[in-house]
Amino acid sequence: MFELDAVLARDSIWVGDLPLSQLRLINNRNLPWFILVPKREGVEEIHHLEPQERMELMAESCLLAETMQDIFSPDKLNVAAIGNKVRQLHLHHVARFEGDVCWPEPVWGRIAAGPYGDKELADILLKVKGFLGAELVSQS
Amino acid sequence: MFELDAVLARDSIWVGDLPLSQLRLINNRNLPWFILVPKREGVEEIHHLEPQERMELMAESCLLAETMQDIFSPDKLNVAAIGNKVRQLHLHHVARFEGDVCWPEPVWGRIAAGPYGDKELADILLKVKGFLGAELVSQS
Repeated sequence: MFELDAVLARDSIWVGDLPLSQLRLINNRNLPWFILVPKREGVEEIHHLEPQERMELMAESCLLAETMQDIFSPDKLNVAAIGNKVRQLHLHHVARFEGDVCWPEPVWGRIAAGPYGDKELADILLKVKGFLGAELVSQS
Repeated sequence: MFELDAVLARDSIWVGDLPLSQLRLINNRNLPWFILVPKREGVEEIHHLEPQERMELMAESCLLAETMQDIFSPDKLNVAAIGNKVRQLHLHHVARFEGDVCWPEPVWGRIAAGPYGDKELADILLKVKGFLGAELVSQS
C-alpha cells in the first residue's frame, strides 16, 4: 500500500491528487516549488514505474509545469527526480527567476527554510486548484 | 533547424542518436553522467515539446536509465531538466553512489572538472553502445 514518506509529509502541504500522483507544495515561501509523488509502493526511480504509469507521470508533470508557468511566469522551470536523501520517488518542479535566492544554482541544499504564512498559503492553493480544477481527483 | 548549444558541445561527447534525442556523455570521469538533448529547435522546457515528443522523451529517458542501472549499478539515479545556465533543453541522467564525490548533494555546481582518459572513454562508449545497440539511429 502506498504510504507517503515522513520527510515529504513534514516538508510539504497536500494540494490534491491527480490520477497517478499526489500534488504537494513544498512549504518554502522563497520559491514556488511543488512535488508530484506517484501513489505506488516501493518506487524509487521513474523507470520503476510501469510503462503506462511513466507516460501518466510525464503528462501530469507537463500539466503542472504549464500551471506553474501560467500562475508564476518564471524565467525557468527546474524539473528533477533526485532522491538521494528521500528515496520515495518524488518529482520536483521549481519555478526559478533570474536573481532569485539561489539563482542560477539548483535549489537543493542551497535554500533556507521559510514556511508560508496562512494568507499566502491560502492564496497559492486557491490559484493552483483554480487552474487544475477538474484534473484533480481530490483536493485539500 | 536544431543546432546543439556550444556549451553542451564543449562539455560532452556524442554517443549516438535516439529517434528524438542526442545522447551525450558529460566529459567528467568523477561520475557516469549522460544528457539527452531533444533535436528540436528553440525548446527550453519539457512541456514545450509536442505531446507525442514528451512521451518519446520519457521512453528514451527510461531506456537510458535502465542502461545506466545495468552498466554502473548506481545506488540512485538523478534525472533532471535544470537549464538555468544553458537554456537548450537537456535532460541530465547521473549515476550516484553512496559516498561519491558530492554525495548526497546534487552534482550541479558541486563537482570539479575531470576529463576522461582515452582508454576509459573508449570503454564507457563501447559498453553504452553495446547495451543500446539497435535503439541508436546513428552512433559515434
